Amino acid sequence: MNCESPLLTDLYQLNMMQAYLDRGETQTAVFEFFARTLPARRGFLLAAGLEQALDYLESLRFSASDLDWLKSTGRFKANLLDYLRGFRFDGDVHAMAEGTAFFAGEPILRVTAPLPAGQFVETRLINILHYQSLIAAKAARCVLAAPGKVLVDFGFRRAHGAEAGLLAARASYIAGFAGTATVLAGQKFGLPLYGTMAHSFIESFDDEILAFESFARSRPDNLVLLLDTYDTEAAAHKVVALAPKLKAAGIAIRAVRLDSGDLVALAKSVRKILDAGGLAEVTIFASGGLDEDALAEFARHNAPIDGFGIGTSLTTSADVPAVDCVYKLQEYAGLARRKRSVQKATWPGRKQVWRRYGADGRMRGDVLAREGHDKDGEALLHPVMQNGQRVRPPEALDAIKRRARGALERLPEPLRRLHPDATYPVEIAPELVALAAEVDRRQQSHGASAG
Amino acid sequence: MNCESPLLTDLYQLNMMQAYLDRGETQTAVFEFFARTLPARRGFLLAAGLEQALDYLESLRFSASDLDWLKSTGRFKANLLDYLRGFRFDGDVHAMAEGTAFFAGEPILRVTAPLPAGQFVETRLINILHYQSLIAAKAARCVLAAPGKVLVDFGFRRAHGAEAGLLAARASYIAGFAGTATVLAGQKFGLPLYGTMAHSFIESFDDEILAFESFARSRPDNLVLLLDTYDTEAAAHKVVALAPKLKAAGIAIRAVRLDSGDLVALAKSVRKILDAGGLAEVTIFASGGLDEDALAEFARHNAPIDGFGIGTSLTTSADVPAVDCVYKLQEYAGLARRKRSVQKATWPGRKQVWRRYGADGRMRGDVLAREGHDKDGEALLHPVMQNGQRVRPPEALDAIKRRARGALERLPEPLRRLHPDATYPVEIAPELVALAAEVDRRQQSHGASAG
Repeated sequence: MNCESPLLTDLYQLNMMQAYLDRGETQTAVFEFFARTLPARRGFLLAAGLEQALDYLESLRFSASDLDWLKSTGRFKANLLDYLRGFRFDGDVHAMAEGTAFFAGEPILRVTAPLPAGQFVETRLINILHYQSLIAAKAARCVLAAPGKVLVDFGFRRAHGAEAGLLAARASYIAGFAGTATVLAGQKFGLPLYGTMAHSFIESFDDEILAFESFARSRPDNLVLLLDTYDTEAAAHKVVALAPKLKAAGIAIRAVRLDSGDLVALAKSVRKILDAGGLAEVTIFASGGLDEDALAEFARHNAPIDGFGIGTSLTTSADVPAVDCVYKLQEYAGLARRKRSVQKATWPGRKQVWRRYGADGRMRGDVLAREGHDKDGEALLHPVMQNGQRVRPPEALDAIKRRARGALERLPEPLRRLHPDATYPVEIAPELVALAAEVDRRQQSHGASAG
Repeated sequence: MNCESPLLTDLYQLNMMQAYLDRGETQTAVFEFFARTLPARRGFLLAAGLEQALDYLESLRFSASDLDWLKSTGRFKANLLDYLRGFRFDGDVHAMAEGTAFFAGEPILRVTAPLPAGQFVETRLINILHYQSLIAAKAARCVLAAPGKVLVDFGFRRAHGAEAGLLAARASYIAGFAGTATVLAGQKFGLPLYGTMAHSFIESFDDEILAFESFARSRPDNLVLLLDTYDTEAAAHKVVALAPKLKAAGIAIRAVRLDSGDLVALAKSVRKILDAGGLAEVTIFASGGLDEDALAEFARHNAPIDGFGIGTSLTTSADVPAVDCVYKLQEYAGLARRKRSVQKATWPGRKQVWRRYGADGRMRGDVLAREGHDKDGEALLHPVMQNGQRVRPPEALDAIKRRARGALERLPEPLRRLHPDATYPVEIAPELVALAAEVDRRQQSHGASAG
């Protein structure tokens, strides 16, 4: 499945482009990407996906076969096909750094480009930024719910397609996961890889202890044995029985994995069995339908589990599989714009987000302001692309991961909870309110005169 | 983003493959893919994704650079790397045809292959089959909730990555959608494309009626005008005012689109405005956060809406973003196998699903049986691949779509409801129950002896 084509867009983008070109509407437009609202169980989102968004903008090209196919549809005129033949994204981009916490109404990316180009890239930019920011936030909730634990992305198989699985591995690593089971994500992003064995491995042997020994001899490094194929506690005793033989062969058991049953109770009994068998250094890893709520439960019960594989709930963000993120026209031909649709009105114009911190280092509140009207605090949007070229090389993932850790540490305490019982204060600067009123007056007068 | 790599797999598949090769465990294994349970709001699932699964199996190859990278990780021995160098999937596949309704416990795909190969493909096969079957079922719910309406996939932007957006377009078309807004899905799968304009188009003009006219002159075919940027009813009056001028230019307005507000009330008032203005033939299309429940509400209120764009709720299957689908070892080296983990026990051995129909043509119940123990009814699993080669060319999408329509028509009435208040009867054949007991006895005796 080709995930690089310029045709990864909505038909209406090409329709609009045709109309813009016909009328010569190619002046500078400004679009911003932001979340309109946050869902009930999300006190914050975590910006992620910027590098893939910039990759997309830098490499956007229509091939001869793309153009032939577009022509063959009979939908488009020669002026549009000519325009697309030489099309390059040559606009400017401002963005929040990946790993930054953000809130409803705050742009994390701004595109400044000729109207047809700025409009065209909407569909894929939303597709990239929405998913990674969604997953980074979900992963951050897991991280907050399991302090000090090793968390690993196990969710490729039920992610929504290949790209989702890969990008979820990246986004969860940014948010604080230790790594992923997805091999291609290891290759592509340099992520640490984790993996053990499946139940089918055990079942393919007639004898569970023989399966353990066989696996140990083939994969002696970072050896993890899966205990719950038949009877978890019986399997733990087998591990104890097998350990001396493996030790004699120079093989140390690193961990055991539990994947079903009452994990709190099983972890406690397995811990006892291992400790009594002289395997206190063997850690316990758990998986199987886990999410941040399960992690919080384990913490409450002091379950002796050292690490967790988080699968489907992570890669599908199962409780909140989408956030209402949009990419909206904020200015065209020097004039601020906004949509006034019921419950969908947006703040017009080019904006900047200013973040203030308290004496304790915690985030205290943001101001959403017009660009050029500076406020106290840290400005969060920075230039990342000029004339279609990145202004700096891609950021190292570990630098992004450190930023995200800092962001989580500095979140106000109520927002760090799984059920956030506060809304982060985002103040709208008076100049922005005034601009919105001005835009409404202008648009209203035009709307009325034409009605 | 490369969505074709053989490294789209979990690390544990390679770990197990190493162990299998080391021990010479390369006899024939049988794996089946099935849903363990159905979520509360799903009375059925709809098989989809088989063609992409077969594409994956047929094209699976490790390139020199894949092998170099695997070697560079230091995790794998020469025998595994040698094996992967010449690796081809050379197994057999049996499957339910796409567009077939299926239920918990029923395999929709069976792989018969040497153990390392059959195991290795698990991750990506689940990834492909789970997502498309999930989306086909979600789309089918929309189709059942909106009889006679035109439904269009608008959901690429908030789909989880590019591949999800593309495959959702395909799966929803199979389930009865008329088409998609995603251009690449039109190119790749030959799907009908739909698209209008965005609010930003209207906002980029100072004057709404001028925006309408400009768009109409550029996109005169299948012209759809978006009404809710500022004031929906005022915009409807503008459409009426503009229509004669467009008609004189040979341009007919095909439809108007509503994307926000109280859609039932707005559709009724817009319908009146259009009818009074002599535009009875202009249809009304609605979009904006819709799902099957909204469609059912519109039907209850007789909202005069002719077609719907369904976005995020479709492509993320928002109420049920994942189903508990698995791919399990059922037989190895001639012996049936099964996992007995708590609440995760499965029926062992190679299976066939037999479907019976009543005199009214409706589905009456299925029997899950051992292969070779024929039952009354229609056998649903058929050979689709032998020795790694498809046994027939890919099926035309419209043939799959017809099959799906038939499947929905023949569902028992209670399962066609959005809140299914019945469970479809799936009987376990006595031979299968006996086989499970036999497997348990065999596995238990081995487990005990080794404990």
